[in-house]
Amino acid sequence: MADECDTEHSVCGMSVAIDVVGGKWKLHLMWVLGEGPQRFGRIRALLPGVSEKVLTENLRHLESHGVVRREVFPEIPPRVEYSLTPAGVELAAALRPLEQWGERRRDGLFDPVSA
Amino acid sequence: MADECDTEHSVCGMSVAIDVVGGKWKLHLMWVLGEGPQRFGRIRALLPGVSEKVLTENLRHLESHGVVRREVFPEIPPRVEYSLTPAGVELAAALRPLEQWGERRRDGLFDPVSA
Repeated sequence: MADECDTEHSVCGMSVAIDVVGGKWKLHLMWVLGEGPQRFGRIRALLPGVSEKVLTENLRHLESHGVVRREVFPEIPPRVEYSLTPAGVELAAALRPLEQWGERRRDGLFDPVSA
Repeated sequence: MADECDTEHSVCGMSVAIDVVGGKWKLHLMWVLGEGPQRFGRIRALLPGVSEKVLTENLRHLESHGVVRREVFPEIPPRVEYSLTPAGVELAAALRPLEQWGERRRDGLFDPVSA
């Protein structure tokens, strides 16, 4: 499947996808937001290992790539919600088989060492 | 889809998958090895932005998680090849929709900013 990437690596599909979602926290964020719109505090609570700074940077990255939308609701105090755009919904769907692979592995459907 | 991860995040499928393949270079390596067995030098040539040290670390990580196999052929000089295990082949297949999403994005099938 890598044929079309050998000479023009920067334009292959996986490379484009990795630019958007490469990295542990971006994958986690896509998974968290796949559940529906979330407030910043809720996202932090769901991902306990990440600092506020890193979380903000990763959310901005996903926003700049058009897969996450940030909305501010004019309430007191203002409510800020993050959600998936249509492209983000497609991306989350494309990540679902990866999640399922992880579920099969977790359930021991193949041996992590000798498989 | 995140319901089952909220309270036990470490055991959700995406988390298990991210432990194995989270990070830009691991995703790239799965894609490169999805094409077939590769020698170390060939992998380096296909991924020009990565140092030998980082590449070795990432290959060892994938090997320790049972998705990549390292084989040494007793030739002079010895030939070392990396390939996917059966679990790795399944993982590469699970990553294919992500690659396809990247291909659609590259081809402009949705607007990267407003989509």
